[in-house]
Amino acid sequence: MSSEPSKPVRIGLLGRGTVGTAFAELVAERADAVEAATGRRPELSGVLTRSEGDAGEILERSDLIVELMGGTDPARELVIDALRAGRPVVTANKQLLAQHGDELFAVAREAGVQLRFEAAVAAVIPIVRTIQESFGVTEISKVFGIVNGTTNFILSEMAATGAGYGEVLARAQELGYAEADPSDDVSGADAAAKMAILARLAFHTQVTLAEVSYQGIEEIQPDDLAYAKELNLSLKLLGVAERRDGGISVRVFPCFLYPGHPLAPIEGPFNAVMVEAPAITEVTMSGPGAGGLQTASAVLGDVVSIIAGDAPVHETRVELPLVADVTSSFYLYLEVADRPGVLATVATVLGDHEISVKSVVQRGAGEDARLVMVVHECLESRFAAAVEALGELDDLRSAPRSIRVIEKEF
Amino acid sequence: MSSEPSKPVRIGLLGRGTVGTAFAELVAERADAVEAATGRRPELSGVLTRSEGDAGEILERSDLIVELMGGTDPARELVIDALRAGRPVVTANKQLLAQHGDELFAVAREAGVQLRFEAAVAAVIPIVRTIQESFGVTEISKVFGIVNGTTNFILSEMAATGAGYGEVLARAQELGYAEADPSDDVSGADAAAKMAILARLAFHTQVTLAEVSYQGIEEIQPDDLAYAKELNLSLKLLGVAERRDGGISVRVFPCFLYPGHPLAPIEGPFNAVMVEAPAITEVTMSGPGAGGLQTASAVLGDVVSIIAGDAPVHETRVELPLVADVTSSFYLYLEVADRPGVLATVATVLGDHEISVKSVVQRGAGEDARLVMVVHECLESRFAAAVEALGELDDLRSAPRSIRVIEKEF
Repeated sequence: MSSEPSKPVRIGLLGRGTVGTAFAELVAERADAVEAATGRRPELSGVLTRSEGDAGEILERSDLIVELMGGTDPARELVIDALRAGRPVVTANKQLLAQHGDELFAVAREAGVQLRFEAAVAAVIPIVRTIQESFGVTEISKVFGIVNGTTNFILSEMAATGAGYGEVLARAQELGYAEADPSDDVSGADAAAKMAILARLAFHTQVTLAEVSYQGIEEIQPDDLAYAKELNLSLKLLGVAERRDGGISVRVFPCFLYPGHPLAPIEGPFNAVMVEAPAITEVTMSGPGAGGLQTASAVLGDVVSIIAGDAPVHETRVELPLVADVTSSFYLYLEVADRPGVLATVATVLGDHEISVKSVVQRGAGEDARLVMVVHECLESRFAAAVEALGELDDLRSAPRSIRVIEKEF
Repeated sequence: MSSEPSKPVRIGLLGRGTVGTAFAELVAERADAVEAATGRRPELSGVLTRSEGDAGEILERSDLIVELMGGTDPARELVIDALRAGRPVVTANKQLLAQHGDELFAVAREAGVQLRFEAAVAAVIPIVRTIQESFGVTEISKVFGIVNGTTNFILSEMAATGAGYGEVLARAQELGYAEADPSDDVSGADAAAKMAILARLAFHTQVTLAEVSYQGIEEIQPDDLAYAKELNLSLKLLGVAERRDGGISVRVFPCFLYPGHPLAPIEGPFNAVMVEAPAITEVTMSGPGAGGLQTASAVLGDVVSIIAGDAPVHETRVELPLVADVTSSFYLYLEVADRPGVLATVATVLGDHEISVKSVVQRGAGEDARLVMVVHECLESRFAAAVEALGELDDLRSAPRSIRVIEKEF
C-alpha cells in the first residue's frame, strides 16, 4: 500500500434519527478498519436534518450519499438528485424502494452508479446481497420469512404468557419493540413493503407495494395460541414471495408452522428469511431485524462495498496470538465401582483442581454404576488435569469420558 | 443493452468430479441468466482432468479459471499459474486455502485479480461473502457453527435411533453422506480446514491449518446421546473461532447445546454458521453443506460476481403475472351452538366447497362450545367462500376465524 495518504471518501448523511446517529458514530469508530480494507478513509462531509443543512451543498462536497431519513418525501427527490449527480447512494428506506423502486433503479442505471439498500430489509441479515449477488443467476422459487420484528415479538410473548394482543402490544411499546403508533407493523404493511423488495430482487420482475396483499396480527386471539401450543405449532407473521402457476404470489399473513420448521424457533424481535431454489435447496438466515446499531452496520457494509469496488482479496492485517487454553463447561461420564465413598472421592479430585460441579446424577448399580456430571466453565487445562487424576483412581472401571457443553447463557 | 453481441466469458474448468460435472451443466443451463445479469455470456473454454487436457492451453484461452480438482497438488500450482497470468480464480478447495492461503492471496493481490472461494466453506451458504463483504469492517468476536454435514448427519441419526457410531456411519456411507474413507470428516480435520479459513477472514489474521486443534466424533457413545436426549440437549460437532484474551482460539470439538440454541435444531447433513459481533448481535445462516449442484451454485455465484464487477443495479428482466388465488392449508375456529348436528352442518358446508378436513376437535360445552379444525390445502378463494357460507349459519355464535397453516411436508 502506498505511504502517501489517499483521498478520503466523503459521505453525505441525510437524516439523523436513531439509525443516522448510530451510523455517524460507527463511521468514526470503524474509519481505521475501512481504510485498512479499502485504502480509503471515510469521513462525514455533512448531515442533513429537517431543520439543518443544505441538500445541494452537502451533495456538492460528497462522494457518496447515505439516506436514512425514512419516508418518501423528500427522500425520493434527494436520492434521485444524488444519483443524477453521479453519487452512489446507500439507503435503509424500505418505503422508498417499495413505492419508487422502478424509478430509482432506472435513474441509477442511467447514471451508472450503485444504489445499495441492504438495511432496508431485515437490518443486518445480508439477505439483499445474498439474493442479488450470491443467488443473482439462481432460479429462485420462493423467498419467505419473518421480516417484522415487532409482530414476532408480540406473537412470541402472547404464546409464552397467554396474554391478549392489547396487553402484549403495550408491553412491546414499553420495551421499545413497538412504536407509539404501531399500525404499520401490526397491520402487516411494513412486512409487505419488505416482501415487495425481496420479490423484485428474487424474480427480476416489477412488484409494486399495491400488489402485495397483507393481513396483520390484530385479530389473533389467545385461544388461537393456546391451540397452537397444544399441537406444538408456532404462530408467525410470514411474508411469502413465490412462483405459482407461471406467475408469482406475494403476500403477508399470520401462519401456523409445524414443529421442526426452520422458522419455528425464531422468537422475539428477530427476523429470519429463507430462500428456496432447486440448485440451492434452501438457505435460512436469521438475526436481529432492527436496532439502530445493527441497521447502521448493514449501511456501513454497503458503503464499504461501494468504496472497495471489486471484492477485495483477503489480506492479513494483524497478528493475533493463538490462545491454546480457554474456558469451557464440560459433561463428564465416569463408569465407577459401586461402593460407598466413590462420589466423595471424585468430588475431592474435582475440588482439588478448583472445578465446580453444576449437576451430578448417579446411574445404575453394580457393574453398571455411572456418574454423569456437568461442571461449570473452567480452564480446559485444569479440567484435563482433573480428568487425568480421575483416570488414576481405583474406583473407575474405565477411562473418564468428557464432552464440552454450551450452557444456557440467559 | 446493446444489440451487438458482447464477447463471451471463457471459463477454464479444472476438474470434472461431482462438482465439476454439476458446474459444467449449470453454466450451460444458466448462460442466459448470466448474460442477462452481466451482459456477458459464459462458456467453457476447456476442461482439465487427470487424464485429459493441457493446463497451459486451457489457461491461454480462458478469461477466468474455476478450480474444482480438490487436493493441493497440482491445484496449488495451477491456481498460482492462473493468477500470475492475470486470470481471476474461483475455487471450492478448502484444503488448498487452509494450507496455502497466504501464498495464494499474496499472488492474487500482486497480480491484482480476484480469488473467490465461497464454495470452500458450507457450500451454498454465503458465509464467505457475508464475512468478507457485509461484515468486512465489523469487529467480529466469534464465528462458529456446524461446518461438516457428514458428522452432523451421523450425530442426528445416533440421537434419533439410539444406534452406535459404527452402525450409523455404515448407513451414512450407504446414503452417500459419508465417503468410503470417512476419516477426514469424522476426525474433525475437514471442519478444522474450514474453520482455519473462516478465522482468517473474520479476524484478518494468519491462521494455518496446523494451528487449529480438533477432535472428532469417533468416541461418542450412544450413552452420551441418551443422556443428552433426557436433558433435551443436542450434540453437535462445532467449529469455533473466537477472540479470547487478546488472541484468538480456533478449535473443533463435539459439544452439547442447550435447547433453544440457534444451532440446536440443525439436523441431518446441514451446515449452519453463526457470526457474533457487538454491532450486529448475531447472524445465523444455515443450509445444505454439500451436494454437487449446491456447491456448483456457490461456484457460479462467485463467477458471476467476477464477471459483473461492481454489484449490478437491480433491473427488471421479465414480467410475471401476480397470481391472486393460491392454495393454502387453514386452521378454522368456530364458536358454535351446543346442539346435535352442528358438526354435520359444518362438515356439509365444507364438503359442498370441496374442502377436506384433516382434523377436528370439539371443545367446551354450552356457551363455550367451539370447533377447532385444520383443513387440507385448497384454493384460498374456495376456502373464503366456505367461510362466508359458514358465517351465515344459525349454528354459529360469532364470525368464523381462520389462520393459514404450513403442514409438515415430509
